[in-house]
Amino acid sequence: MTLPIETPAVLVDIEIARRNIRAFQDYANRHGIRVRPHIKTHKLPQMAELQLEAGAIGITCQKVTEAEAMVEGSAQIKDVLITYNILGAEKLARLAELNKRVILSVVADNPTVIDGLSARFARENEPLTVLVECNTGADRCGVATPAEAASLARRIADAPGLHFGGLMTYPPVGGTERVQAFMSEAKRLIEADGIDVPTVTSGGTPNMMEAAGASVATEHRPGTYIYNDRSLVARGVATWDNCALTVLATVVSVPAENRAIIDAGSKVLTSDLLGLSGYGHVLGRDDIRIDQLSEEHGRLVSDGPISLKVGDKLRIVPNHACVVTNMVDAVHIVEGNEVKSIWPIVARGRVL
Amino acid sequence: MTLPIETPAVLVDIEIARRNIRAFQDYANRHGIRVRPHIKTHKLPQMAELQLEAGAIGITCQKVTEAEAMVEGSAQIKDVLITYNILGAEKLARLAELNKRVILSVVADNPTVIDGLSARFARENEPLTVLVECNTGADRCGVATPAEAASLARRIADAPGLHFGGLMTYPPVGGTERVQAFMSEAKRLIEADGIDVPTVTSGGTPNMMEAAGASVATEHRPGTYIYNDRSLVARGVATWDNCALTVLATVVSVPAENRAIIDAGSKVLTSDLLGLSGYGHVLGRDDIRIDQLSEEHGRLVSDGPISLKVGDKLRIVPNHACVVTNMVDAVHIVEGNEVKSIWPIVARGRVL
Repeated sequence: MTLPIETPAVLVDIEIARRNIRAFQDYANRHGIRVRPHIKTHKLPQMAELQLEAGAIGITCQKVTEAEAMVEGSAQIKDVLITYNILGAEKLARLAELNKRVILSVVADNPTVIDGLSARFARENEPLTVLVECNTGADRCGVATPAEAASLARRIADAPGLHFGGLMTYPPVGGTERVQAFMSEAKRLIEADGIDVPTVTSGGTPNMMEAAGASVATEHRPGTYIYNDRSLVARGVATWDNCALTVLATVVSVPAENRAIIDAGSKVLTSDLLGLSGYGHVLGRDDIRIDQLSEEHGRLVSDGPISLKVGDKLRIVPNHACVVTNMVDAVHIVEGNEVKSIWPIVARGRVL
Repeated sequence: MTLPIETPAVLVDIEIARRNIRAFQDYANRHGIRVRPHIKTHKLPQMAELQLEAGAIGITCQKVTEAEAMVEGSAQIKDVLITYNILGAEKLARLAELNKRVILSVVADNPTVIDGLSARFARENEPLTVLVECNTGADRCGVATPAEAASLARRIADAPGLHFGGLMTYPPVGGTERVQAFMSEAKRLIEADGIDVPTVTSGGTPNMMEAAGASVATEHRPGTYIYNDRSLVARGVATWDNCALTVLATVVSVPAENRAIIDAGSKVLTSDLLGLSGYGHVLGRDDIRIDQLSEEHGRLVSDGPISLKVGDKLRIVPNHACVVTNMVDAVHIVEGNEVKSIWPIVARGRVL
């Protein structure tokens, strides 16, 4: 590995990414599931275009400013779901502008958010589509019961400036059955109230190959699947060969026989553990553990001699690909060991 | 708290920062220790100027591109130490340019790095000052013994284009005695070899108020002290009242009686734990734990009713201030509840 790149650098193998996109799109096509990838993993309009060209119906963003960057970056992006409770005058104004440019939808899990959206969109020509977020066990956002979902659906349907778009959930790993049970019951209650439920959207990469098990869902929102990472390899849903994103690092010190230090720390790999031990996997070196990160240093240890020398370059699969994308201003697009181009990560750091 | 700021946002109370700078500078002045603050915590030329105006002799950076951003950002920055093993043609070329603009020094803990620096600087007019990094127990970089330090000092002194600048260490917490023992012995050996040791530099905020205990050290490089954070409060070296950096967040969901969700996740607070449980401290709410982060959501839980409503704003002291600075493009400079200005974080994301 002698890529002519200053390190640390984030590399994305474009052929692996294409394969990963294809694999889930094929599954979804077979099962009649619409695919709406979450762009948090790549934050790149170019990658969204690959996903749309493969058959995705639109994209998912988590924040308003992410959606702005993506829509600005590609004319192919015409349908955006923001899976977030949006509050505040400035964000609502941005949302109103976005709603003029693309088919836009957002979610809400409480009356305060719905009323805020309605107050803003009542004065617009086009209504805003709002889905109800449901808690199917991840215990983050989302209404706790199908009855609450039905109550909010009614509130949205009655609210000036809003259009009820359906149901959304981000399930826990292994939550497919709970998605089916919760969303079916919520849909039944809402339809019994005379309201259409055009979309039921679920998400997550770990569950994606069993998405068809929740037949009530009309679409799925995988994010990490385009790159994969160490957490997904640990779960058995990916292999090192289909990890598209790696961090290229240089050994800058070998201060002891069993310890080496690389120039990638938490400012690139991040401290995300996702239940794992250690901060990434050194490709080709199963014997090495990345046992400690400071901001600019990663510490590699092995039980025996580490057999690395200063200047050696390593490729590391991070625990969590999505957060690594957010740490750097650009990614190096590679095919194998060849650098094809450098893409600025236009939706990086968009927290509003 | 009704700051007219879109959330999540990183706030820095400038008066608290000034007080923190003053407190350590006073201690250092009393004990004859030079102060060379590490800018990794703030990444802001304006904050470096406050530190220099208070009496700091220069700054510390971790990466070449950080140093470039800081020097570019303030004409007051004239003396920079980069505490890193620097390798690679592009970084060495950048270093040579920096060495023409400011008093520059770097560190090395191995012959490969020293030889690389010498090969590049042999063709420059001005030599580069190089200190030897010593491992006093943090087990990251650094030579393992005073004898190795002396051997590298000799190598630097003999290398074309280089000037031996002294000894550097980043000690573990509570490592003051080890600093004194290791550095004294290394200095003795180097001087016995006929080489001057002009600087012995140690670092770290947790140890800084006992820095005088390592009397061999001529300077100290604290970083986090300017802002403080939850990790330093937990260690008993700061209080909430002298935490200058906070994250302002909005409650976006209260999906259960004892659970609330805020719009700040790991993309702002980061997953750094530093040995703590939970991801930050909600000011004024000792009863709340931030028990889980995803990228854009923080989950707050309490044993009893959480008593928050959607739209409430909270200020959070993060576990680790330095890494939060790296997550956003700008900080809001405040005094109490009043916003004074917005400063772009010019050295953010500089990983090369």
